Amino acid sequence: MPDRTNASYSLTIRLSIERKPGMLGHITTAIGQRGGLMGTITIASLERGRVVRDLNVYARDEDHEQRIVDGLKGIPGVQVLTVKDRTFDYHEGGKIRVESRREIEGPDDLAIAYTPGVGRISLAVADDAELAYKYTMKGNSVAVVTDGTAVLGLGNIGPMGALPVMEGKAVLFGKFAGINAFPICLNVTDPDTIVSVVKAISPAFGGINLEDISAPRCFEIERRLTEELDIPVFDDDQHGTAIAVLAALYNALLLVKKQLNEAKIVISGIGAAGIACIRILRSAGATDITSCDRLGVIYPGREEGMNPVKEELARLINPQGKKGGLKEALTGADVFIGVSSGDILAPSDLSIMAHEPIVFALANPMPEVDPEGAKDYASIVATGRSGFPNQISNILVFPGMFRGALDARARRITPAMNLAAARAIAGLVPLDELSEGYIIPTAFHTEVSRTVAHAVTTAANESGAV
Amino acid sequence: MPDRTNASYSLTIRLSIERKPGMLGHITTAIGQRGGLMGTITIASLERGRVVRDLNVYARDEDHEQRIVDGLKGIPGVQVLTVKDRTFDYHEGGKIRVESRREIEGPDDLAIAYTPGVGRISLAVADDAELAYKYTMKGNSVAVVTDGTAVLGLGNIGPMGALPVMEGKAVLFGKFAGINAFPICLNVTDPDTIVSVVKAISPAFGGINLEDISAPRCFEIERRLTEELDIPVFDDDQHGTAIAVLAALYNALLLVKKQLNEAKIVISGIGAAGIACIRILRSAGATDITSCDRLGVIYPGREEGMNPVKEELARLINPQGKKGGLKEALTGADVFIGVSSGDILAPSDLSIMAHEPIVFALANPMPEVDPEGAKDYASIVATGRSGFPNQISNILVFPGMFRGALDARARRITPAMNLAAARAIAGLVPLDELSEGYIIPTAFHTEVSRTVAHAVTTAANESGAV
Repeated sequence: MPDRTNASYSLTIRLSIERKPGMLGHITTAIGQRGGLMGTITIASLERGRVVRDLNVYARDEDHEQRIVDGLKGIPGVQVLTVKDRTFDYHEGGKIRVESRREIEGPDDLAIAYTPGVGRISLAVADDAELAYKYTMKGNSVAVVTDGTAVLGLGNIGPMGALPVMEGKAVLFGKFAGINAFPICLNVTDPDTIVSVVKAISPAFGGINLEDISAPRCFEIERRLTEELDIPVFDDDQHGTAIAVLAALYNALLLVKKQLNEAKIVISGIGAAGIACIRILRSAGATDITSCDRLGVIYPGREEGMNPVKEELARLINPQGKKGGLKEALTGADVFIGVSSGDILAPSDLSIMAHEPIVFALANPMPEVDPEGAKDYASIVATGRSGFPNQISNILVFPGMFRGALDARARRITPAMNLAAARAIAGLVPLDELSEGYIIPTAFHTEVSRTVAHAVTTAANESGAV
Repeated sequence: MPDRTNASYSLTIRLSIERKPGMLGHITTAIGQRGGLMGTITIASLERGRVVRDLNVYARDEDHEQRIVDGLKGIPGVQVLTVKDRTFDYHEGGKIRVESRREIEGPDDLAIAYTPGVGRISLAVADDAELAYKYTMKGNSVAVVTDGTAVLGLGNIGPMGALPVMEGKAVLFGKFAGINAFPICLNVTDPDTIVSVVKAISPAFGGINLEDISAPRCFEIERRLTEELDIPVFDDDQHGTAIAVLAALYNALLLVKKQLNEAKIVISGIGAAGIACIRILRSAGATDITSCDRLGVIYPGREEGMNPVKEELARLINPQGKKGGLKEALTGADVFIGVSSGDILAPSDLSIMAHEPIVFALANPMPEVDPEGAKDYASIVATGRSGFPNQISNILVFPGMFRGALDARARRITPAMNLAAARAIAGLVPLDELSEGYIIPTAFHTEVSRTVAHAVTTAANESGAV
């Protein structure tokens, strides 16, 4: 059985242990027998004849966590003092804070930062709005906007349920790009209303990141905001994923020596990410794309499960009106891109693909096909998960994309900026390191954000976005 | 001429000075002769035969700044290297930033703070919204909402012009109460729309601070948001000022041995602050209040310059329909409270007030009456400005008010909470230090926020706000 433990179900267990040889062996054995994976083991304190230790243990789920703890309780000489779920512990009090960038220690600072001094800045900005980029937060601030209708793989859990994700996003904007990102969780879902609200709050922001808004509403919302605002608007679920996919695909095709404009590509999933993948692949030169949802291949005039956006795409990519299921579509395909849901293919289903097939199974938390099994059939396998090689993640994209757009003072995000970001990410894998297990940099690659930002700024200037 | 220099017009001037005795004397004399006030003088570097110094100099306005710099340019052996306006310098890049409260150093942190771990928190919060107070930013976050229609003393300068002030407010929320405050600058002004927008973005926030929204719209907006949201809503221009006024008045009346319920009080200005002053004074027991605007005393049925809120108040406080101008109203008054505009009274106009009159001239930046001159006629004089004794400032109020309301998990702000805050602020001036020059603590008194918070939390519990 593959190891399914992960950090998101990890515990910090504090134990008081009788101080004699062999005790830690009993403990780690008990944890191992129950399938728990050991992380760090530290000493919190020493007492007479006892040692207090903190153990980080990785589990598969909450039941598994509980079984591991129960197992420890049965060991003579071991007392369980506290058990902390690291994920809940980490989130206590929320993940972000707003801080002053300046000292405010005495009356002088107060007179400068607040009334009366700040009035001088207000008048200057009111007189020339461009000065907001110099003297206010605007030029480095992004609203992370959601209505909570399509949160991660969890679906429509509402704006409050979405808040922890938006805070996480804000943390990543700060960590990877030094951008002030702030969650705007909307308890309205009508596109007209969302557009109005985002426009109403836009003055303080230099950019809008749309997040976890369900398709097809997200398309209209992004299109209208892009038209009606003069700051960049970016739906990360669409373009973040699509840009990362294209980056990985550039390198994967290089490895198997195939051309993007000749590759037969099958995409499973026609939500925000799937549609954006089709669009960016076409703008990058792909010509043979087949798109499937739960009901199979989309074609013009299909009666069930369509919407205007799907219909428009079906006419573009499938004018002949080919029909069929996902498995039929895979016959002879060079590339499978899954942005749909878990376990819809068996590894052996991939055997009908072309020579040296590329498989990106990006559904979270369960990929479309088991990535370990898929390796037996595909030359290159990538997922959306950490813990496997080739994680295709929008974390590679959005920090650098906004850093670049803000630095360029871009008024919108152009297709050229998206393509430039994908090229930049792909280019961070040195040719002599490029391999089936390394087609895309990791989230913690230190150069990603700066490199993407530079490429995006250049593309913004060249494509008339400024 | 009284010294009108202040920190908001201060310069940091870097000079390269020939190194010989007497040079600093020439420089400081030149600055003094032009009316500049010296702040700190530091040495930036020493070179062969020259010293580079940074001088902080306080001026009155931008022209004055320029004259001071011009004066320095004429001194032999002195070279002006750079001149920085400290206020503009301080504001570069904006005043606030959003930061992570947690480490995010490797894949484990990423799996916990973001997907997949954060999904567990999202599901927990979606299932039980109260958990948002424990596991998200909500419980410690306040939206600072403005439409920019009544910014400081500057009037309707729009949401972008208001942004530096809102950032300043956010800085103070953080500094004095450890609260995450974030500017929401609205480019809409219709009360219905503002109410809808604020409700739409409310999920991520634990409280709403309304700011610099012009009267009478601010009253309706606050009332409706209070009714329709289950988080506290506080219009700082109204209640922040009113609470600080009442706190100062408690102590001032104690000093002159008069009773609030017998005092004859005249209020000039019937904007947000004036109306809130009337309301809190009445709820504190005041019975004799006369309210004036530019057109004189308000009375029921007055034809000019009225609105529904003023009409309602006129019926409450002036049922007999007394008329007249501000100066007539001051005859025999114990207390004058100005929340209107600068220089509307001469100091000698105060001579018609009662024995031992109290004068709060709070207009900014110019008080209603010159505070130095007013001292010749009034026992106690207070202003809204720093640099004079007795600064009556809402900085004393809003940090502790929200800290207390958030700590109590109050669903609204009650009159009892406002009164408790005023009592708490007044109580911070020890009786043996209470004097005509010290009736209210300064903004940097270290106990204000905690003391107000404690009083507000208690009052919230007792007044059914929780």
